[in-house]
Formats: sequence, structure tokens, C-alpha cells
Amino acid sequence: MSRPHAVRRARVAQALEAEGLAAALFEDTEGRRDQGIRYLTGQPGDALLVIAADGRSVLVAWDLNMARELAQADEIRAYSDFERKPIRALGEIAAGLGLPRGSRVELPAATPYPRYVDYVEGLPDYDLVCREGGAGEALRGMRAVKDAGEIALYRRAAELTDRLIDAIEAAVRGGKAATEADLALLIERECRSLGCEGTGFETIAAGPARSFGIHAFPAWGPGPFGSAGMSILDFGLKLEGYTTDVTMSFLRGSLGPERERMVELVLAAREAAAAAIKPGARTRDAALAVDAVFAAAGLAMPHALGHGIGLEAHEAPAIRSRADNEDTFAAGQVVAIEPGLYHPELGGIRFEDDYLVTAAGCERLTHSRIVRL
Amino acid sequence: MSRPHAVRRARVAQALEAEGLAAALFEDTEGRRDQGIRYLTGQPGDALLVIAADGRSVLVAWDLNMARELAQADEIRAYSDFERKPIRALGEIAAGLGLPRGSRVELPAATPYPRYVDYVEGLPDYDLVCREGGAGEALRGMRAVKDAGEIALYRRAAELTDRLIDAIEAAVRGGKAATEADLALLIERECRSLGCEGTGFETIAAGPARSFGIHAFPAWGPGPFGSAGMSILDFGLKLEGYTTDVTMSFLRGSLGPERERMVELVLAAREAAAAAIKPGARTRDAALAVDAVFAAAGLAMPHALGHGIGLEAHEAPAIRSRADNEDTFAAGQVVAIEPGLYHPELGGIRFEDDYLVTAAGCERLTHSRIVRL
Repeated sequence: MSRPHAVRRARVAQALEAEGLAAALFEDTEGRRDQGIRYLTGQPGDALLVIAADGRSVLVAWDLNMARELAQADEIRAYSDFERKPIRALGEIAAGLGLPRGSRVELPAATPYPRYVDYVEGLPDYDLVCREGGAGEALRGMRAVKDAGEIALYRRAAELTDRLIDAIEAAVRGGKAATEADLALLIERECRSLGCEGTGFETIAAGPARSFGIHAFPAWGPGPFGSAGMSILDFGLKLEGYTTDVTMSFLRGSLGPERERMVELVLAAREAAAAAIKPGARTRDAALAVDAVFAAAGLAMPHALGHGIGLEAHEAPAIRSRADNEDTFAAGQVVAIEPGLYHPELGGIRFEDDYLVTAAGCERLTHSRIVRL
Repeated sequence: MSRPHAVRRARVAQALEAEGLAAALFEDTEGRRDQGIRYLTGQPGDALLVIAADGRSVLVAWDLNMARELAQADEIRAYSDFERKPIRALGEIAAGLGLPRGSRVELPAATPYPRYVDYVEGLPDYDLVCREGGAGEALRGMRAVKDAGEIALYRRAAELTDRLIDAIEAAVRGGKAATEADLALLIERECRSLGCEGTGFETIAAGPARSFGIHAFPAWGPGPFGSAGMSILDFGLKLEGYTTDVTMSFLRGSLGPERERMVELVLAAREAAAAAIKPGARTRDAALAVDAVFAAAGLAMPHALGHGIGLEAHEAPAIRSRADNEDTFAAGQVVAIEPGLYHPELGGIRFEDDYLVTAAGCERLTHSRIVRL
């Protein structure tokens, strides 16, 4: 595990040097989660990480016992050594690393404005930079394009997800899963027995009465699932930190022409999306192609078409039609594509799979289904 | 449900007027969750809310269908009306509300520095304020002190939590729950059958081999629980949005003098903490009292003593010994107190219950246990 982490930290250090930065701070804390620290050290969370342009790294862990077990960095310190104060920690680490006065040090782009002001006041010896497009953005780009080890992991994760999809379909068809809770708990249990760390995110199991919600609230409950109408099941498993993300829909009974039209449109949207995935293409164009499919029928999708997946369920690239989206597809990205339509009375349908972007276009990794019962 | 929301929004509006603000923006979005929007409107999340000093409110919902079902505000808009861009949304809403040029408008204190710069550039007609101690802090204070309806809800939630504690102890003693997964899934299922929305947060079930971690990683897995040594089970149920937060520990076999000392110290710490809870007292003093108990034995607790609970698992007041903690106890607060000790080889123990702060001191709401098997 330590080799990829060290290679990644070295790449970050190179990026810092190229930008004239002496060091960068990364932070994972309640309210501002960043799996970048796991990507760079193996520590699952609740930590600070300082990487210097010369490649040295210091991890400050809230849980020192866990860090000693799981993490790798040049130096590991307990957050309590710094009274759990990030500004004090950064100041002492920067001094320990011998960063010259006036050095440029980058803070996470997610740093709240008032906290940034505190950093600037508390650490007058450094030129503190906080911006979009800095070291965090470089890391976002690194994380978006998976390395060979990550791609191999995703192939395994997709295979396990497909086995789970089979088990789910069998349980619903066999009458063993008839409520939202049945499905959510089946997934929790099965993904552990498949050897996964857990689910990638909270399963959304929404029976026909609740599938109108993009993300049903609560995510699952005691109500029926797979009964007459359209049910949505959005889930993923987490293998060694990496999440898959698929959505199955279940259709039962005579749906009527409006619902059947929604099903057809979602299938057509999916084809349009897959055809638009190729290296160098703008992700926005894939989303616009899907928007056009729905718009021709007078309908609209109320959410983005998709997103990259990785250590977080939503990573780069963004795949949406907003004018400010400038992301492009690149070989090695793993992306979730999830066209869906929702109607307050008719219910909702969503169909989501994970794709690997390849030199030739894309390869479907998971095999979700629209199941007719 | 709508009456408390309207009352709360009116209180926020009053606070705005008192501070010379024309309006405040609240935001719940991926990466920056804020249940304040649920507290003020009923919308569970993924939304913007603008409250003007004259009391008018506009909710911008990512999921319009859900908002129409669950939320209450003077006006409800779809986020897609604004291309899902918060700056555009705030600008159009401020114009629609007729806020005069130069008005002071407060942004969430969690707004990242680069985003704040974008707001200032994008909305030059307003004086945009972003700070600790503003409208968000007023809301934090409001949420910390529960109203009569919330206290009644917490009494019900605590009673259900106690029933779950009974069921858990019975399942472990009866051999029906022998792995971490057994416990986690039992809790998921039982809290729904008790009529709750779900769990308050991801259950931490850590058997003896993993209980050294403050928050075990992963939170639960296939391994043994309740076997020889010390196991930790940290969980809560969510009733109508409000979470409880308790930790049981399970002890099996001959623990040896060092572990028995840890158990005794945690029990003593708990007494010291409860004695220090009274209206007007500094929460820091309760944490310092516990630190002293552990320090006398040459040990230290690597996390805060506790925290308020509510719509989020961690709310005001903070209950920790950091010098910058100036929070005080007040009647009507509901707080979780969780002394714990952790050792890389011996394992960990934590004992956590929820307390209502009363005029006389405090009342224990939940009845967690250290169970000897």
C-alpha cells in the first residue's frame, strides 16, 4: 500500500515546486471531508497533511493509534500535540520543515473565509494562498485518472457489484425482499460478505410512493419496494476505499403510456450518453446530448448526468450541462452515468452504471438493470 | 410542523434586523452540510434559504418535488431555475425581495474563501458579510437550546434508545449478535421498526481487536464483537430528524488490572462530568474535570468530552478542554457525554449517554451500559 501513496505525494510535491509553493496543507475534518488524505497516505480521515515542495510530508492524525496502523508519511504526529488547532499545527510543522519566511504555503480551497483570515493573522511569516485551481485542483486531476492498480481494483469492485445486482434481483423476484428496509439491509450485509469495506454511500431504496424524489428522504424506510409502479434502488459498494455507484429500477404492473415513455427516454438517454464518452470530449457535451433527448419529449432531468467515482462517491470529472463545466473525459477515468426522470405522481426511474473511459471510448464496468416484475 | 419553522424564521429575521443585516443566506450542499435549513423550513437538505430582515423567506430546493411535500417557506423555487448556481440564485432573490443597493447580506460562515471572492465579484450591489458570530452563530445558539416540542421529542427518542439498548444487550447475551455486522444490522433494522427515520450516524461496532480506535475504521465489519476483552458500540437513532448518541461497552473474560483501571476511570470521569453540568457553567470546566481524573492516573482522553445533539450528531455546545472553548451550559440543551480511554494493545472503552440540562443541573435521558459478559 505504501508505494502508490509515496508516488502520489511525490507528484504533489512536483506540482508545488512547479508553482513556486513551499508546501501545501490538506485537511479532512468534520464538515470538510477530503479523501485526498487517504489517497496520499492511507489514513482514512480526520487528519491534516502537510507536503513540502522537497517531498517531505507530515501527517497529523486525530487518532494516532489508527495512523500508526494504517498510514504512511515521513512523520506522523498526534493532533492533540497541537491542541487540535490546525493553525498551530501548520505553524509548528512549517517551522520544523524549515520553510523560509515569506514562503508561499497553500491552504485547502474549502477553507472558510473567516478561518482563512485567522490563518493569515496567526501565521504572518508565510504567504498563505487559498484558491481554486491550486494544489487541491492538481490532486483532483490526479485522482480522476486512475492508475493501473486502481483500474484493476475497479474491475474487481464492478464484478462484485454485478454479483450483488444478481442477488438483489433474485431476492426481489423471489419475494425475499419486499420492503425498502429489506433491500438496504441485504446490501449492507452482502457487500461485507463479498469482502468489501462497506457500502459506498447510504443506499437509496425508494418504493413507488417515494421514487419521485431524486434522493428519497429518508433514504430508506419500512415501506414497500417493488410493488406496482416504479421503484428506485441506488447503491454502491466500497472496496479498499473505492466506491461503485449503480441504480437499478424495478417496474411492476401495467405502467401506462406516460411511465412507459419515461422508461424509453431513460434508455435512449443512456445510449446518447455512452456514445458521447471518449477521451478529449467535453463532459458537458454528453450531458447536453441527454438534455436534448429529454427536451424533445418536453421533459427535463433535475440533476447532473453523472460524475467521476473513486475514494468519494462524487469526484472529478463533473458531467453536467452547466455552462461553467469545462471538464473533459480522459482515458483512465471511472465515471457513473445516471439518467433519470421524476414525476410527483407517476414516480421516478433512474438507470445508472459505471464506465471506464478508454482510448477507444468507454467500457461499461457494471451491469445494472431495469427489472420488470 | 410548519408553526415551529415559521417561529424560528421569525427569530432569525429579528436577529438580522438587530444586526443591521438585510438578509442572510443559508446553504446545505455536498461538502458543506447544514441542517439549519431543515430546522428553519423542514426541507431535509440540498437547498439554499434566504431570510430577509422583514421576515420573508425563499427556499431554493435541488429537489422541488420533495420541497413541495416537506418544506415550508414563503416561496419555494427550483435550484434549476438558477442553473444550480448559488451566486445567481442569491442575486435574483435579493433583487426579487427588493433589497436596496448596498444592503448588508450575510453568507454562511462555512463559505470557502475562493467562493466568497466570487460572491463579492458577482454581486457588487450588496455588502456581503462572511464571519463567525453572525446569523449562523445566532442559529447555532437557537438550535442548542431545545424548545418544548423538541424536548418532548427527545424524551421519546431516549425511551426508544433505551429499548434498543435492552434489545442489544439481550442479543449479545443470548448469542444472537456475535459479530460487529450483527450489531450494526440489528440497530439498522430495530430503529426502523421502532418508528425512527433511521440511525443518527453510522454505527461504530468495534470488537476487542479494533476498539483501540476512537472511531474504528471501517465503522463495522465481519469480525467478532463481545468476545474476550473490550468491545465498543457507539450508535444513535434518528427520530423526526433528531439523533440520540450513546455508547455501550462490552467486557468479557478476565480483563487484567490495566483494563479494569480503565473501566474504573471512565466511570469516575462520567460522575465528574455529570456533576459539572449546570446552567451557566462553562462546558470547558466539565471537560477539565474529566481530564484531571485521567491525568491523575497518567492517562489522557484523545477526544472531546462531549457535544450537543440535535438535527446533527455534533451541535452546540462544544464540551471540550481547549482554551478557546467559551461555550456554557444552558437549561434546555441536550448533550452527549462520552468519556473514553484507548490503548493500542489493551483496546478501548467508552461510556456515553445523553443528558438534558435543567435548571437544577442535568437529567440523564438515556441509560447506556457497560455490560459484563
